[in-house]
Amino acid sequence: MSAAYDPNNIFAKILRGELPCHKVYEDEHVLAFMDIMPRCEGHTLVIPKAPARGLLDISPEALAGLALGVQTVAAAVMKATMADGLTILQSNEAAAGQVVFHMHVHIMPRWEGVKLAPHTSQMAPKEALIAAADKIRAALA
Amino acid sequence: MSAAYDPNNIFAKILRGELPCHKVYEDEHVLAFMDIMPRCEGHTLVIPKAPARGLLDISPEALAGLALGVQTVAAAVMKATMADGLTILQSNEAAAGQVVFHMHVHIMPRWEGVKLAPHTSQMAPKEALIAAADKIRAALA
Repeated sequence: MSAAYDPNNIFAKILRGELPCHKVYEDEHVLAFMDIMPRCEGHTLVIPKAPARGLLDISPEALAGLALGVQTVAAAVMKATMADGLTILQSNEAAAGQVVFHMHVHIMPRWEGVKLAPHTSQMAPKEALIAAADKIRAALA
Repeated sequence: MSAAYDPNNIFAKILRGELPCHKVYEDEHVLAFMDIMPRCEGHTLVIPKAPARGLLDISPEALAGLALGVQTVAAAVMKATMADGLTILQSNEAAAGQVVFHMHVHIMPRWEGVKLAPHTSQMAPKEALIAAADKIRAALA
């Protein structure tokens, strides 16, 4: 149904410490960091540590751990950004817009009357990502 | 941060059997049924049985059960619709587009080159919803 997991995807490299990230949270099951091509202020990703391409091949145990990690980080993102709401999005396969083939959950803060920016390949300024990560980590502390 | 849970929302009424739905799956933790205003063929909703407005007020236990129910139903939706991918969306509060204030997860099958229709208040023909539910139930059997 879908291709196999490729251990050389960029999120696998982040998990192995081979690539940097603006980390906001980590536990036994998940790692959370800023999306470097944010669709809104505070756009955060939560990924399982277990190798999985998406929702259909992740183990039930890893999925439950991921869901709880998403909840923990989402509450902090909401608080840190003083948002009015949150969009939670998880895309499976290219037809759904998946670009990196390690499962990831988008946490996107929302404000009344503000649309999400389209997904682009525009990187945010590093200072903005550092500032956003600092605020979310503070909300988690 | 957000308003209290209103037990008279339409999904609470569906859970109590006071309103009908095109049910595809039910277990201890979740109920799944067709979205009557689908953004694509096979658009399915999974809701926790526990009263929760969204991701921030659901109990960890109910959330873990919800995640596993979403996985079960998503695999069946993928199979039943022969989709190329799946968009999983969960909206929290009106600013994120939430309309019914009982937590729900959208499972939306995706095909290469086919965009999601915008969210409208257009109801799908009953026959289309019945046919879609039949196919998904068959994939779960």
